Amino acid sequence: MKLTAKLMDIGTREVLVNIEDARNIGVLNGDRVQILNEATGVGVAAFIDTTTTLLPRGTIGVYRLTNERLKITEGASVEVRKAERPAALDYIRKKMDGDHLSKEETYAIIQDVVDDNLSAAELTAYITACYINDMDMDEVEHLTRAMVDTGERLMFHSHPIVDKHSIGGVPGNKISLLVVPIIAASGLKIPKTSSRAITGAGGTADLMEVLAPVHFSAAEVQQMTEKVGGAIVWGGATNIAPADDKIIIQEYPFRIDARGQMIASVMAKKFAVGADLVVIDIPVGTHAKVRTIQEGRKLARDFIELGDRLRIQVECAITYGDSPVGRAIGPKLEVIEALRILEGAETPGSLFQKSVAIAGMALEMSGKAPRWKGAEMAGEIIRKGDALKKFRQIIEIQGGDPNVKSEDISPGKYQFVVNAPATGYVIELNNKSLISLARTAGAPHDKGAGILLHAKKGSRVEKGQPIFTIFAERSWRLQKAIEEGRQLMPVMVEGMLLDRVPQDTRWG
Amino acid sequence: MKLTAKLMDIGTREVLVNIEDARNIGVLNGDRVQILNEATGVGVAAFIDTTTTLLPRGTIGVYRLTNERLKITEGASVEVRKAERPAALDYIRKKMDGDHLSKEETYAIIQDVVDDNLSAAELTAYITACYINDMDMDEVEHLTRAMVDTGERLMFHSHPIVDKHSIGGVPGNKISLLVVPIIAASGLKIPKTSSRAITGAGGTADLMEVLAPVHFSAAEVQQMTEKVGGAIVWGGATNIAPADDKIIIQEYPFRIDARGQMIASVMAKKFAVGADLVVIDIPVGTHAKVRTIQEGRKLARDFIELGDRLRIQVECAITYGDSPVGRAIGPKLEVIEALRILEGAETPGSLFQKSVAIAGMALEMSGKAPRWKGAEMAGEIIRKGDALKKFRQIIEIQGGDPNVKSEDISPGKYQFVVNAPATGYVIELNNKSLISLARTAGAPHDKGAGILLHAKKGSRVEKGQPIFTIFAERSWRLQKAIEEGRQLMPVMVEGMLLDRVPQDTRWG
Repeated sequence: MKLTAKLMDIGTREVLVNIEDARNIGVLNGDRVQILNEATGVGVAAFIDTTTTLLPRGTIGVYRLTNERLKITEGASVEVRKAERPAALDYIRKKMDGDHLSKEETYAIIQDVVDDNLSAAELTAYITACYINDMDMDEVEHLTRAMVDTGERLMFHSHPIVDKHSIGGVPGNKISLLVVPIIAASGLKIPKTSSRAITGAGGTADLMEVLAPVHFSAAEVQQMTEKVGGAIVWGGATNIAPADDKIIIQEYPFRIDARGQMIASVMAKKFAVGADLVVIDIPVGTHAKVRTIQEGRKLARDFIELGDRLRIQVECAITYGDSPVGRAIGPKLEVIEALRILEGAETPGSLFQKSVAIAGMALEMSGKAPRWKGAEMAGEIIRKGDALKKFRQIIEIQGGDPNVKSEDISPGKYQFVVNAPATGYVIELNNKSLISLARTAGAPHDKGAGILLHAKKGSRVEKGQPIFTIFAERSWRLQKAIEEGRQLMPVMVEGMLLDRVPQDTRWG
Repeated sequence: MKLTAKLMDIGTREVLVNIEDARNIGVLNGDRVQILNEATGVGVAAFIDTTTTLLPRGTIGVYRLTNERLKITEGASVEVRKAERPAALDYIRKKMDGDHLSKEETYAIIQDVVDDNLSAAELTAYITACYINDMDMDEVEHLTRAMVDTGERLMFHSHPIVDKHSIGGVPGNKISLLVVPIIAASGLKIPKTSSRAITGAGGTADLMEVLAPVHFSAAEVQQMTEKVGGAIVWGGATNIAPADDKIIIQEYPFRIDARGQMIASVMAKKFAVGADLVVIDIPVGTHAKVRTIQEGRKLARDFIELGDRLRIQVECAITYGDSPVGRAIGPKLEVIEALRILEGAETPGSLFQKSVAIAGMALEMSGKAPRWKGAEMAGEIIRKGDALKKFRQIIEIQGGDPNVKSEDISPGKYQFVVNAPATGYVIELNNKSLISLARTAGAPHDKGAGILLHAKKGSRVEKGQPIFTIFAERSWRLQKAIEEGRQLMPVMVEGMLLDRVPQDTRWG
């Protein structure tokens, strides 16, 4: 059926048609249609919404995300018909039925994901099926390659290329801000694509954005890395492994992170940037994504096996994941903490030590440092000021101010200090509660929002001594965070439990 | 945040807000918000779409399905905030993880389904998890009861109440049009709620609609049944087990029909109409939903066990499902065929025999007929004209013309006769291809569209002799069906294969 396009600024992959026209096309709300831009010959699939009054018969409302692909002009003519059922749905059904998917089947699904040919519900069915009927290593390899091949890739002429990744879930894990400059300062190349927080208080991209723009194309990332040895950008803008981001969004409501999917997701990004040597940080702990060291080792073996298949040398670090890394949580607070270490501070020890350990592994793998001497070399690179110098080059090439100092950065001006309600030892820092609190305070959107811990696990505090400060950029957000903190109690002091019975849950 | 409502006639459960307002609420496209109608105190959840230009800040576009619940007036003020994450998502995750759901957890999910609190993707995750990690009988019972308790119920004062159900997938299975009048004519009550075709060429509701309206409330169904002993209505309008329809829509893209879900779906509708005696027709065959007699027997045992738990007496008929029932496929064609039998024809035998067999089982279960004498009694009820008389009462009470005769009904005027390309035996009637062809010709929406088979499986045809006719109400649909038929070859004559090598796939 021929319809006249009317552009509608609604941010989804749908089209709106009069219910009568929908009936004639033979579709209902939510069904898939194929739309042809008659001027260009470009065809795209989109999902149907219907109206009885908002649009007259003969017209079609083209929503913004649909038109990003269709590129139709207002009033132009489009041909609309009921879309064929994508073959990907049969493959998803196959996975539901417990069968293994072939390379071709996985590629068909991932191509449809990248093209937005699958509805959120259809993609969710794929994710759920892969979560329950976990993929074998062949399937993981196919998925990884499919995610790489449906996006951009970097192709460096000189090697080796280094990369690192931390499995998420641990607040304050800002080590990339230190590892990337150390590696680049050693003369190796490290084009680091990173994520924004979805459930966290700040992804590496959210942090780096405090210092410089992070939106770059894959080609720009390559150029910057060739010039200064490294970059820290938001992966979502590079179109590297774009299917992965779409998958992660759909996993979000269920808080799932299917093993095979996660391994493929991480390694696709490393493979696509052309990495030869990859260090993977696997934090383990009761409140981390990986609960036990055994589980961590198994995951490490899977990463290494997939690396072998892709000809990437992978080494994994099992790290302590039950407590934040450093004391700062939230973009600006974390950047201040990382910059201070580059400027010469060697505390917090948890941050300094972890960063040089991870960077050191890459230095050893590349042959820059002898075995067991990598961390020492990484520490030296910081102490000599080389890492700071390199970080400033990276900030500059990304368009930030290379003269930035830690004291130039101001966190949110609305602050609330939480004091110890009793004297005793800090017995628990709850990752999830700390993240939730930082998010309520505004992180990662409000860069100055977050939490600064004054006492870490195992340290002794006196009643009335500050245990943490909440920072916010807006006063109402601070109030909400204070209220939430009263319930969540993210930092537990030994004696504190006594104060909670029965009603008094104030912090003192 | 307070926003001013602007009603938008878009048929989904969403709201549209300016991207700046969305950021301030703390939500992205697809996130869930809670909206409070300040005038009435009614709160509903809806999903966010965003725009930069279509709506100014401070306003909220309320889509039609959202407003069916919110009932806000244009320009009124609503309070919008980020919604809490429904607990149902945790239960869905639990089912993904292979755990069993408690009664309370199942109820929470089904209540959210009925209230449209879950997105299509979230509901799909639930369905996929239940499909892969099949429910045990406790979970099936909880699901059944939850579906019943979240909808309307019929409460008859006199008993027994009879019901029947056929597992779908077999074209032409119009037996309810005969079984309901037979049972009602025997003095029993049978309030039959039935479905429209989703994937088929015509559900019982689509067929009955040729003769009378089928949209009634649960109370109306009860009144009509009390008066004339039976009714044949569309279940979707009754609000009986409304969760089930929403689940079935989401299963559609994957063509799945999870065992536990399907059993619960069937039995919830029977339980909700107050049925005491239920006959379930389980067609078995290579092209049917149930493939083997063993599988059919297992399914039958499950239905009977669930019936025991609900105090419903269930008997199952395993029937032949590899060929259409009767010769007609498509609403009007099927109604003509059924009416002819009520008017005195005893052919097609497959339809007559199956109808009296199923009706006979119910007559025996109720004690109206002695064991093994039910089918005979059912046949007598037809032959004496009692079933026709009863059917006319049912048509009349539903608002149709009680004097309707089979010859008054005209199928689609565009017709194409397909002749045998060779002499030989009809070796295959492919259910799926026949249904697909009938749908392409316009069924079930175009009531006159469909297929009439002239030769059934095993019968001998001469080259050039008609094997089936395609009917359509619109000439372009007939053309499309003819083209599709050339590919699908729904009726295979023995000698026909010879004609297909290598290119010539015409029907002759």
